[in-house]
Amino acid sequence: MKVIADICIVPIGVGVSLGSYIAVCEKILRDAGLKIHLHGYGTNVEGEWDVVMQAFKDCHARLHDMGVPRITSTLRFGTRIDRDQTIEDKIRSVEAKL
Amino acid sequence: MKVIADICIVPIGVGVSLGSYIAVCEKILRDAGLKIHLHGYGTNVEGEWDVVMQAFKDCHARLHDMGVPRITSTLRFGTRIDRDQTIEDKIRSVEAKL
Amino acid sequence: MKVIADICIVPIGVGVSLGSYIAVCEKILRDAGLKIHLHGYGTNVEGEWDVVMQAFKDCHARLHDMGVPRITSTLRFGTRIDRDQTIEDKIRSVEAKL
Amino acid sequence: MKVIADICIVPIGVGVSLGSYIAVCEKILRDAGLKIHLHGYGTNVEGEWDVVMQAFKDCHARLHDMGVPRITSTLRFGTRIDRDQTIEDKIRSVEAKL
Repeated sequence: MKVIADICIVPIGVGVSLGSYIAVCEKILRDAGLKIHLHGYGTNVEGEWDVVMQAFKDCHARLHDMGVPRITSTLRFGTRIDRDQTIEDKIRSVEAKL
Repeated sequence: MKVIADICIVPIGVGVSLGSYIAVCEKILRDAGLKIHLHGYGTNVEGEWDVVMQAFKDCHARLHDMGVPRITSTLRFGTRIDRDQTIEDKIRSVEAKL
Repeated sequence: MKVIADICIVPIGVGVSLGSYIAVCEKILRDAGLKIHLHGYGTNVEGEWDVVMQAFKDCHARLHDMGVPRITSTLRFGTRIDRDQTIEDKIRSVEAKL
Repeated sequence: MKVIADICIVPIGVGVSLGSYIAVCEKILRDAGLKIHLHGYGTNVEGEWDVVMQAFKDCHARLHDMGVPRITSTLRFGTRIDRDQTIEDKIRSVEAKL
């Protein structure tokens, strides 16, 4: 099952500057072979469900290993069986109507 | 790794009445042995990360098997290593200060 | 326009214990005359769109006044024009099918 | 109060192809003078809190006017008082550490 997800990971208890933690997660997602797109409030991720989920779990585990005491993440998870669709397809389907 | 999650599953392409689909997911989560609490805009879930994730995947798979063409879910996922905490603990920590 | 919302407010930069900040927000939402239901990962809110939005804005403003340097909130916002529905209706529509 | 938000609007009860509805919302957000960035699972929005909120409300109202019976939206809402930050700043703060 393929999924297009949007992942926003928020480390808690390590101050207000979170960029270095997010960068660690970006590398984990990228090194998992996933197609990713970093935006201003999260990261689009496209890939097989199990690969996405394992990489997301690795993000939480790695941040805790780095000493982050608490993490709250928000995700959007989209699957469809009517047709195959990529992140670019989704963006184009909107832009074509603008 | 234990997680407290909040899961909101939205079937798309099957009209506006979604309660029967949500009920199917509630049963999947419950039958997975997870502690769950249904509220007005999702379901709190507490359990081991892998069990929660497998049950959530089963929800998507089952709804697609039922003919739902498209699903978009939103999740909150919280982990912490500083102390053990339950759903009830979280609610009590707020109510104690009201 | 009536809305059923789910609001999860996360103060950043004030450590890992957030219950007292959430309690402040609960009081703001309640004092706005909104119907609310605190659960393990947020708060269901039911009311008129503008009242909900003003109360949510007051939460951010109040927490910043209390010294919280950064806040990230996640919300679900549901509206419908096909029929009137309450938080209890939504829960019952699922439970009736369990 | 300035906010950086991420908005994902999901029309329910109008089938599985949602691009034309999202395009309507993009135009509303853009015409409100907001800085926006469409991505694969939502839209980053940067601007004054009240302007963002009014435009978001206009999106729900317009879609209902177009006949959409039910809408569920998910939002992330970030404010900070420690320093001024743009969408581009947020992305750069991560990319600089990759």
